[in-house]
Amino acid sequence: MKDQDQPDAGASRRAFLRAGLATGVAAIGSPVLAAGNPENQPPNIPEWTRLLGDGVAVRAYGKPSKHEAHVIRRDVEWLTASRESSVSFTPLHALDGNITPNGLLFERHHSGIAEVDPADYRLILHGLVDRPLIFTLDDLKRMPRVNRAYFCECAANSGMEWRGAQLNGAQFTHGMVHCVMYTGVPLKTLLDEAGVKTNAKWLLLEGGDSAAMTRSLPLAKAMDDVLIAYRMNGEMLYPENGYPVRAVIPGWEANMWVKWLRRIEVGDQPWHHREETSKYTDLLENGKARRFTYVMDAKSVITNPSPQAPLNHKSGFTVLSGIAWSGRGKIARVDVSLDGGRNWRTARLDGPVWDKALTRFYFEFDWDGSELLLQSRAMDETGYVQPTKTELRQVRGVNSIYHNNGIQTWHVHKNGEVENVEVS
Amino acid sequence: MKDQDQPDAGASRRAFLRAGLATGVAAIGSPVLAAGNPENQPPNIPEWTRLLGDGVAVRAYGKPSKHEAHVIRRDVEWLTASRESSVSFTPLHALDGNITPNGLLFERHHSGIAEVDPADYRLILHGLVDRPLIFTLDDLKRMPRVNRAYFCECAANSGMEWRGAQLNGAQFTHGMVHCVMYTGVPLKTLLDEAGVKTNAKWLLLEGGDSAAMTRSLPLAKAMDDVLIAYRMNGEMLYPENGYPVRAVIPGWEANMWVKWLRRIEVGDQPWHHREETSKYTDLLENGKARRFTYVMDAKSVITNPSPQAPLNHKSGFTVLSGIAWSGRGKIARVDVSLDGGRNWRTARLDGPVWDKALTRFYFEFDWDGSELLLQSRAMDETGYVQPTKTELRQVRGVNSIYHNNGIQTWHVHKNGEVENVEVS
Repeated sequence: MKDQDQPDAGASRRAFLRAGLATGVAAIGSPVLAAGNPENQPPNIPEWTRLLGDGVAVRAYGKPSKHEAHVIRRDVEWLTASRESSVSFTPLHALDGNITPNGLLFERHHSGIAEVDPADYRLILHGLVDRPLIFTLDDLKRMPRVNRAYFCECAANSGMEWRGAQLNGAQFTHGMVHCVMYTGVPLKTLLDEAGVKTNAKWLLLEGGDSAAMTRSLPLAKAMDDVLIAYRMNGEMLYPENGYPVRAVIPGWEANMWVKWLRRIEVGDQPWHHREETSKYTDLLENGKARRFTYVMDAKSVITNPSPQAPLNHKSGFTVLSGIAWSGRGKIARVDVSLDGGRNWRTARLDGPVWDKALTRFYFEFDWDGSELLLQSRAMDETGYVQPTKTELRQVRGVNSIYHNNGIQTWHVHKNGEVENVEVS
Repeated sequence: MKDQDQPDAGASRRAFLRAGLATGVAAIGSPVLAAGNPENQPPNIPEWTRLLGDGVAVRAYGKPSKHEAHVIRRDVEWLTASRESSVSFTPLHALDGNITPNGLLFERHHSGIAEVDPADYRLILHGLVDRPLIFTLDDLKRMPRVNRAYFCECAANSGMEWRGAQLNGAQFTHGMVHCVMYTGVPLKTLLDEAGVKTNAKWLLLEGGDSAAMTRSLPLAKAMDDVLIAYRMNGEMLYPENGYPVRAVIPGWEANMWVKWLRRIEVGDQPWHHREETSKYTDLLENGKARRFTYVMDAKSVITNPSPQAPLNHKSGFTVLSGIAWSGRGKIARVDVSLDGGRNWRTARLDGPVWDKALTRFYFEFDWDGSELLLQSRAMDETGYVQPTKTELRQVRGVNSIYHNNGIQTWHVHKNGEVENVEVS
């Protein structure tokens, strides 16, 4: 973790102190204190301090306060024909840091949530191997394991923005991304155990859902950093995230992260299944399609303020916050613009900056109350810079659905409301 | 994060490959395949692949599989007179990695869970300051914030082991510890805003629960790394963890991490309140009591195997796993003994190794099926070595409840069952 020892916002905090808390914090003597209560004495006692609360283990498994009931995954009714083959989005505007809590990971199912009985779960590894093998869940849990946090982003995240759909909220424009700490077995361990034949070049991963979700995976990636994961943030995967076992393909598009993983076949060429031909390819202007576009390029979005999280003050000290990520490595820098990309300032990265994981950024400034055109621009350690939507369209046209990592613009109005807009 | 790029268990994995999967993984041809199914063909189709599953957002806020219903916080009925002033324990034996999922953080309440309405929440900062201040939740959310993961351990964790209570499971012996990623405002920022007077030396933190939980905190610690936190793992605190605002006092005993934080008073001496006199002090053999023993010294426990998580194989390749932490900094090394402390081997640390946070360790070995006396011993970056229980008792006697960081022993029987024992 960067600066774990020093919880100090540094230059930003000094700016905050200069700007003061003009519109915020009240001095003692405010109406929340009982009238006549002398300074330096405890103020009046709130209602909840007068009551004995619920005891321990009343909720043996915890959940958020009822006052946070609006912080949920949401789907968009008109987006898909059925909810079994649909999407629900992570409420990015209501989160902070870089770890996504387990209850709020976006969902993308192709035939609903497979309800797997872990006692009957099996993972089959076969094809061009010396020893075809079948693993129970207990077998996998008995193997050496590692813990790694990675972002998982659907290739279609921000897809509707190609043609300017301008969905009204970061939850809907960018909410098909999450980041948790996975525990799992390196796929290389399983492949080494089975003994991969010398002519092997590709793997097929197949899900146990009724879509039998299948994707071809290059052997080189499988031997590099792919995990066969069964835990997220310490506990077992939730059903909608692939319980009991899913693939984790760091930095690559989420539909390759096959859930309810049932079968791995080793072969010498890709399988050209539905989800890598008819879907998850990008039709260009010249009629050709980009295929096997695995890597999710560097991207970022400002989560606060955003359309679902307007500014509720008129001016003064303001913290702008967002997330950045890259499928090619660590985030090196994030810049922020308040004027639609004319001028840029470097944001403060805070919390862990991990390889192929969400990175949190902040930009603190003194808002003069005028309209803003907010943008963020991520740069990764390879030197890649997040493009504008215009730049992307010049290269890829407007037929694409997938791999839109263009810069997002939020229009902040004088009343603090925020709108999804495009600037040219 | 250590080695984020290389999910490779290294020497351990090689040991695993040497030991093979003798008692585990089945070769293809096992009964789970349909009879007569030729090798290298997909096996028979499980029941869940034949059904259309639940759609998206059926659970707008996710929860674990019904097959994980046993992975919950648990309390011990005889331990306390009422559940409002009691403890529920984190199921350490059923978790992995170093992040605790939000649903499973241990609870310790002194008068139940305060149910705070965030709209009416106020934090009062007064006493020896130039400008007494009152903050709303929105005020705090508008301030510069940081993200840091820290362990939180109750001073009484393992307390019943002083006199050899030998509770039967890591959940009960060590389950009053958790580790999440907090988002919050450095307390120094609030104090700087209020302007601390030159004679100030101590702070009083007071909770909004009906116990009005109060602890004295040295100003130097407050100005160092204390956070006024409102999020854990990205989302708002759960009610039982102090919603909407709690103190985070890195490395120090959990009852100072005041929940439902209502008031901070600045003074020139400690307050000597109940929880730092009658309770949370350690009576020594000579009749004197240790007081203000804030720091949680280096400690560790093997979570797997442990009494609630026996070995379910007779012999062969075995992964031993556990957690280590220190209130004085980063974990530098963890050693493991299979024979009650006679011989020690260095464990593999995996995942993030953060300052004052849980650190996951593993030790892989080829179990010959004989009885084992498992121990782990943590060392932190200051050079401090976790003591034996005998060493602790020699210094502190047996009147103590708090600050037992002695080495735990698990007796693994030949049938794989595990028992809490002591070795001299």
